[in-house]
Amino acid sequence: MPENINIDDMPEVIAGYLNERNFGSIRELFESMEPADIAQLLGEIDDSRLPILFRILPKELAAETFVEMDSDEQELLINAFNDRELKDVIDELFVDDAVDLIEEMPANVVKRILRHTDPETRSAINEILRYPKDSAGSIMTTEYVSLRPDMTVSDAFDRIRRTGVDKETIYTCYVIAGNRKLLGLVSVRELLLSDYNTIVSDIMETNIISVETTEDREDVANKFDKYDFISLPVVDKENRLVGIVTFDDAIDVLREEHSEDIQKMSAVSPSDENYFKTPVWKHAKNRIVWLLLLMLSATVTGTIINNYQAAFTAAPILVGFIPMLMGTGGNCGSQSSTMIIRGLALGEIRPKDIAKVLFTEVRVALISGVTLALVNCVRIFIMYKGDDPLFLSVTTGLSLVGIVVLAQCLGALLPVLAKLCRLDPALMAQPLITTIMDAFSCFIFFNIALLIMSRGFV
Amino acid sequence: MPENINIDDMPEVIAGYLNERNFGSIRELFESMEPADIAQLLGEIDDSRLPILFRILPKELAAETFVEMDSDEQELLINAFNDRELKDVIDELFVDDAVDLIEEMPANVVKRILRHTDPETRSAINEILRYPKDSAGSIMTTEYVSLRPDMTVSDAFDRIRRTGVDKETIYTCYVIAGNRKLLGLVSVRELLLSDYNTIVSDIMETNIISVETTEDREDVANKFDKYDFISLPVVDKENRLVGIVTFDDAIDVLREEHSEDIQKMSAVSPSDENYFKTPVWKHAKNRIVWLLLLMLSATVTGTIINNYQAAFTAAPILVGFIPMLMGTGGNCGSQSSTMIIRGLALGEIRPKDIAKVLFTEVRVALISGVTLALVNCVRIFIMYKGDDPLFLSVTTGLSLVGIVVLAQCLGALLPVLAKLCRLDPALMAQPLITTIMDAFSCFIFFNIALLIMSRGFV
Repeated sequence: MPENINIDDMPEVIAGYLNERNFGSIRELFESMEPADIAQLLGEIDDSRLPILFRILPKELAAETFVEMDSDEQELLINAFNDRELKDVIDELFVDDAVDLIEEMPANVVKRILRHTDPETRSAINEILRYPKDSAGSIMTTEYVSLRPDMTVSDAFDRIRRTGVDKETIYTCYVIAGNRKLLGLVSVRELLLSDYNTIVSDIMETNIISVETTEDREDVANKFDKYDFISLPVVDKENRLVGIVTFDDAIDVLREEHSEDIQKMSAVSPSDENYFKTPVWKHAKNRIVWLLLLMLSATVTGTIINNYQAAFTAAPILVGFIPMLMGTGGNCGSQSSTMIIRGLALGEIRPKDIAKVLFTEVRVALISGVTLALVNCVRIFIMYKGDDPLFLSVTTGLSLVGIVVLAQCLGALLPVLAKLCRLDPALMAQPLITTIMDAFSCFIFFNIALLIMSRGFV
Repeated sequence: MPENINIDDMPEVIAGYLNERNFGSIRELFESMEPADIAQLLGEIDDSRLPILFRILPKELAAETFVEMDSDEQELLINAFNDRELKDVIDELFVDDAVDLIEEMPANVVKRILRHTDPETRSAINEILRYPKDSAGSIMTTEYVSLRPDMTVSDAFDRIRRTGVDKETIYTCYVIAGNRKLLGLVSVRELLLSDYNTIVSDIMETNIISVETTEDREDVANKFDKYDFISLPVVDKENRLVGIVTFDDAIDVLREEHSEDIQKMSAVSPSDENYFKTPVWKHAKNRIVWLLLLMLSATVTGTIINNYQAAFTAAPILVGFIPMLMGTGGNCGSQSSTMIIRGLALGEIRPKDIAKVLFTEVRVALISGVTLALVNCVRIFIMYKGDDPLFLSVTTGLSLVGIVVLAQCLGALLPVLAKLCRLDPALMAQPLITTIMDAFSCFIFFNIALLIMSRGFV
């Protein structure tokens, strides 16, 4: 990026050049930028000027920029392209990027794209589109360097030089047999450090970590995290190599899964769309279903409270403690569920560890619950001097301990149960736990209060 | 990994071999595994057997496995090593891994490690240790391939062959001047596709995306996500190359920041330790501070409720609606704060966009609030036929709309304010918003109820 122009001023600078029809300066500016930055810049510029600006880009840079753009801008451009321009962009795309594009476009645009794709690429695209969403197959690319085991290092370099320019990565080469079975892999580093006459099968790595086409893409991303590979081979059930996943796809998956997780954990239906590009009605739709569900579940708590009207009309001061108790129950439940959800996602916790988890959570809950009860007791003796502080602190203290223990056990149990039922554990986070704990907190509190009142303990 | 042995059975198989003193089979087994898998396996085996098993590993594999182990196991091993063994492992570590190790070890172990490090590495380690935690400098490594601009491609390959074996990545080479200023970079792919006599400065890329030593490591990771690079150069204020960050470090940062985010968003003090390896008192400590803070804040809500005792002793049925209203306020606030926190983290939303965000959230809130109020009205006319359903649905309906609008505005405002105050926006998530909204929800509800009652509207 040119150092003398601030990124925030770019749209104005470009608009100025455009008004002067000074295309040379725009081209020069673009050539000094990374594709991702050009795409971001084009996203901030008026849509009507997008096709003119895009046509200023040199061919290869144009395709690289196109890949980085938002899908609505891609669609706008495709509709503005003539057939020649469309073919130029499509020809430069890697297969996995072409698949991403096709998945986002409406049917008529897809047809037009496929018409301008060469037959070989079209069949690769169609193959990838067959794999289920979120599978390894759906994020792989078919552009990798394959070697034969009997090649020499010198042959291997010849092949890389000849075919490498079109491959997504050349740094890990895959050694396959005639039937496409994956035999091993060899890195360019290993090739560079070996003698030219060495036979590939003598230096290839045969302990291969591979993934199957149907494996979940989050598990694939976790493998990149664990093993630090540049690419991972994707094989079918017969161990035939069908594609590779590269580390940049893994980073994308991690980011998307992160967004999805925290949205689910806050009761928002997951969406990977840009905040400002999502229409208001869609924002509302992504949130309303959960809000309605949680609102209606909260009526259970309301019903419980109504059943104890006798208790709180006798001692109305009790009502003031409800938010504190419900809040603590919700917070404890959401704390432990978060720890467990994260542990499950990272593979630190397995469903069979549930007894160990519960034992940990109960001990943590006893420490937390007793601490909270003591602090609460001090507060009550300060703030409620005239209102029978002993009764209040015993009632709320016992309730706190009970609520905290129950909340942390539920927070630990529900995500594990979800996992066992093949649901996403992240659904069992704060919103659901809070709603459940609201009901239990009131139930525990009023029962303890009634018990103590009926025994005439105070 | 050997296909005939299940990973879950490994610890038993190894223990069996160990009892038979069949070290050959163990070594063979280890040699067929990835270092990360061996480390995981060793973590599941009794600590007393760790040193014996570790000594069975061949030298290079031993160092690679050591890097992947948990810090308590690393400490145990170092204490069991003699000086020769320690030096063997340390010599094989990359500088950034050595730094990670040193940061985790107690002072006496650190001294011993540094004593067995060669002077050059020691000074590199000390330099990296000087950078602030979470900065680009703290996660970089100093082992990169540097080239001179006047080298030929053939010279470059010679240099890579000669020095590459010790470098963390060879695939991006950095071209520097005599004063270490970064002039450009060239990929091995580009080198392989060029003629041997080409001069490096003719093919090097001079539009360089680099990071400064003090840049936040999360911003560095986001650059990997945006640009898909294998490595990024780290430069000082004078644009002198001081190190590189590789994509695997970026993946680690993304994972750690993800854990940190969702822990903060659930009011758990962030910790990257394994769930089961964290002692119970530490789990409790990570949670209690927030619980206490939130419990005490909830007393504000309690006080508000106590102030309206007149209202709910006159109409005790109102109390039953408190959980539903507080719950909805908390859920809406946490939904919008999550969207904004995520948008800020991804760079989709900038603090200056706040007006645009508020405009979006108010519209979303009106749609959600009115929908919830209508559904709630239907529910009340069904469930509270005998209890003045008109009064109840008008009161709760108006409250719902007010609460949802306020919750979504607060949920949007607080993270942006945090960002402006240089706090982590993730702190402004569900637990805090819920607690604040509890108080506001009660306040809004009782005031609307009193207003309607005093006007004799029903």
